[in-house]
Amino acid sequence: MTYNIGLLGLGTVGTGTAEILLNPDGRSPLLRDIRIHRVGVRALNKPRTVDFEPGVLTTNLDAIVADPEIDIIVELIGGVERARELILAAIAHGKHIVTANKAVIARHGDEIFSAAQTAGVYVLLEAAVGGGIPIIQPLKQSLGGNRIERVTGIINGTTNYILTQMQDEGAAFDDVLAEAQALGYAEADPTADVDGFDAADKISILASLAFGGRVRYEDIDRQGIRNISPADITYAQQLGFTIKLLAIAQWSTAQNSLHLRVGPTLVTNHHPLASVNGVFNAILIDADPLGQVMFYGPGAGKGATASAVTADLLNITALLQSEKLEDGLHPLLTCTHTDYCPITPTEAVETRFYARFLCGDRPGVIGHLGTCFGDHNVSLESIVQIGYHQDQAEVVVVTHDVREGDFHAALDAIHGFEEIDDIHIASVFRVL
Amino acid sequence: MTYNIGLLGLGTVGTGTAEILLNPDGRSPLLRDIRIHRVGVRALNKPRTVDFEPGVLTTNLDAIVADPEIDIIVELIGGVERARELILAAIAHGKHIVTANKAVIARHGDEIFSAAQTAGVYVLLEAAVGGGIPIIQPLKQSLGGNRIERVTGIINGTTNYILTQMQDEGAAFDDVLAEAQALGYAEADPTADVDGFDAADKISILASLAFGGRVRYEDIDRQGIRNISPADITYAQQLGFTIKLLAIAQWSTAQNSLHLRVGPTLVTNHHPLASVNGVFNAILIDADPLGQVMFYGPGAGKGATASAVTADLLNITALLQSEKLEDGLHPLLTCTHTDYCPITPTEAVETRFYARFLCGDRPGVIGHLGTCFGDHNVSLESIVQIGYHQDQAEVVVVTHDVREGDFHAALDAIHGFEEIDDIHIASVFRVL
Repeated sequence: MTYNIGLLGLGTVGTGTAEILLNPDGRSPLLRDIRIHRVGVRALNKPRTVDFEPGVLTTNLDAIVADPEIDIIVELIGGVERARELILAAIAHGKHIVTANKAVIARHGDEIFSAAQTAGVYVLLEAAVGGGIPIIQPLKQSLGGNRIERVTGIINGTTNYILTQMQDEGAAFDDVLAEAQALGYAEADPTADVDGFDAADKISILASLAFGGRVRYEDIDRQGIRNISPADITYAQQLGFTIKLLAIAQWSTAQNSLHLRVGPTLVTNHHPLASVNGVFNAILIDADPLGQVMFYGPGAGKGATASAVTADLLNITALLQSEKLEDGLHPLLTCTHTDYCPITPTEAVETRFYARFLCGDRPGVIGHLGTCFGDHNVSLESIVQIGYHQDQAEVVVVTHDVREGDFHAALDAIHGFEEIDDIHIASVFRVL
Repeated sequence: MTYNIGLLGLGTVGTGTAEILLNPDGRSPLLRDIRIHRVGVRALNKPRTVDFEPGVLTTNLDAIVADPEIDIIVELIGGVERARELILAAIAHGKHIVTANKAVIARHGDEIFSAAQTAGVYVLLEAAVGGGIPIIQPLKQSLGGNRIERVTGIINGTTNYILTQMQDEGAAFDDVLAEAQALGYAEADPTADVDGFDAADKISILASLAFGGRVRYEDIDRQGIRNISPADITYAQQLGFTIKLLAIAQWSTAQNSLHLRVGPTLVTNHHPLASVNGVFNAILIDADPLGQVMFYGPGAGKGATASAVTADLLNITALLQSEKLEDGLHPLLTCTHTDYCPITPTEAVETRFYARFLCGDRPGVIGHLGTCFGDHNVSLESIVQIGYHQDQAEVVVVTHDVREGDFHAALDAIHGFEEIDDIHIASVFRVL
């Protein structure tokens, strides 16, 4: 049996998806059961690289989501408000949804999945996280025997490209950003990427799947990469670390709660995530009893994202062919949880830290720093005067696992002594 | 609705699976719908770490596969003949099958999948390849929009452990093998691992899924790791390569056929597979339009393999809850192909080669080797006198992509001149 899809948006990913569906040779035989019925675009007369039958293209997206002949809506217009409206309308009309839109799911997932549950339809979103890397489906279908302990991801290609270039070329953030913008790897307004919003959207989706509860976007501790200096990258390297923008969702069994964060993080050079470079993404999952698995691949791009969209289309088609929807949806592919995950307060999280200080170069500075940390229960792994910067000594501190609250109390105490002791905090990052 | 399983075998993986099923807290809620009804063991009175209700343990495996109350049989006894017999009997009784047994699937998959198709039951085998790494399910369900070009795997943990140790310690194969046997990483009879049989079983399974056709075990070009010397590892390192036992299934579009091989292969040090060390496994897939994705994790072990077995159990349970089997099985989770993949003859495969020669140290030797390769259309990337061994010069050759047939013709010519020219072929490996 053939199923009709309505494609909303014919940009890069929409075009890539259409190219797969219109050229099924050598791919899954099930693709022949999927037919592009309507494609919603902004303007009909734009030159395009794929050809459709007359009447397929339309600018009336509201008509597509209401079209009784359509079984599955593929939402690829991006953005939040209009996408939310179209997805909810399509669900109300009994359509299954495939989307690559992390923002709309991260911010309105509760509303969308509740509506889908009521309407008895699937909402699949493999393309929303990790581009072409299969990660949503494995989380839903392959790891259910485990207790997930931590999800750690390099899930924003733009920032990973920038950090890789900064490391390889010793260049400053602003210069590499400008270069990335010229190459099309970064947007004209780079905020969503470089300030960690995109990674926060994605980790909230992964966390919700991994830990079986909803996640509020505002519960994510978020820090971008603008404040990473070439000095930090160099010193991190000298200490055996690479700086990556990591998105982490970590379950605390002791506190029975979840901590979510996005921020620049030092990773030891032999860690599998340290060698994930350029625009590649990787997601590492720690689980009991499985251990550690990693999924690695292209985090964006036409073909990669279209591959993920097509995977969802194939899965819905396969289910429609083999199940009776009145008997209920496939329980691993639906989102039934309605409770929110309890959140670990940031100050109670245990992690390691890297901090760089600029100090007047006089005796006792290292001792003073050491004492200050010790007074606040912050145990140090190393404290090294590592270089000079404009006549000031640069001192780098790496801690053992400590409570974030204790670490920040120590920093406040050090900060309080700034004027008398001439110690300035230049940068602070977590260490994995 | 609850489903009853019959577990055949209560060794390491069986015990790990039972531990998950008997302790569902914090795991997939669907686990509560799976009940261990019978467990088939060799002896009832052996001490065990898991407790079952009285009557669950039995030594009568034939009764389990015929038990009308059982829905799913989990085959974990290993081996080939008895496993085949029990699986076929279970299928004939309408049971779904979950197995971790790569050998029985690689050798009798055609018979088993045909029987399953006739009986309308699922045969899932996530645990058969890559231990806890989700790879079978992603191949079936996440990559269907692609044309798969190549599957490249480090899929035998024992040999990867041995090669990692040889590289890290500069030790000889025999010494590291003895150490691995003492640690339990290698079997008393290591043939299945070190001669590449296990990796061949696994690549035949991956290839069959990736390329949608059956594969004959005897069509796999198989070479083990016994002939890798510390000298080769050192020279490979000097040239920027790491030696790995790779299993490769590669589709040739030009020849419209598949080449399958297992053998020691030089991998450039910045390739993602080069840093997969110890008992870890990784599978890299090249696909169009996706690009390159890698799945990495523990290739063996109680918890990892039990995680994969449980994934299959959850998937079958989810399908049984949401589908009507009389409407047909889920098309992505069944194996319907009955044709065999056309095979590329080894001599027609294009690949790069590394070869080490021991030569009398006299003028003209390098020129003679170079001419011999040139005469047979073998284009060289480098030819270097890299060291000395027992008063003989060691010359290492790395080729560009060449036809295997041409390369071996050149080697035959060189071999023919052995006595006159004092050139001996010490080792030959492919280069990725």
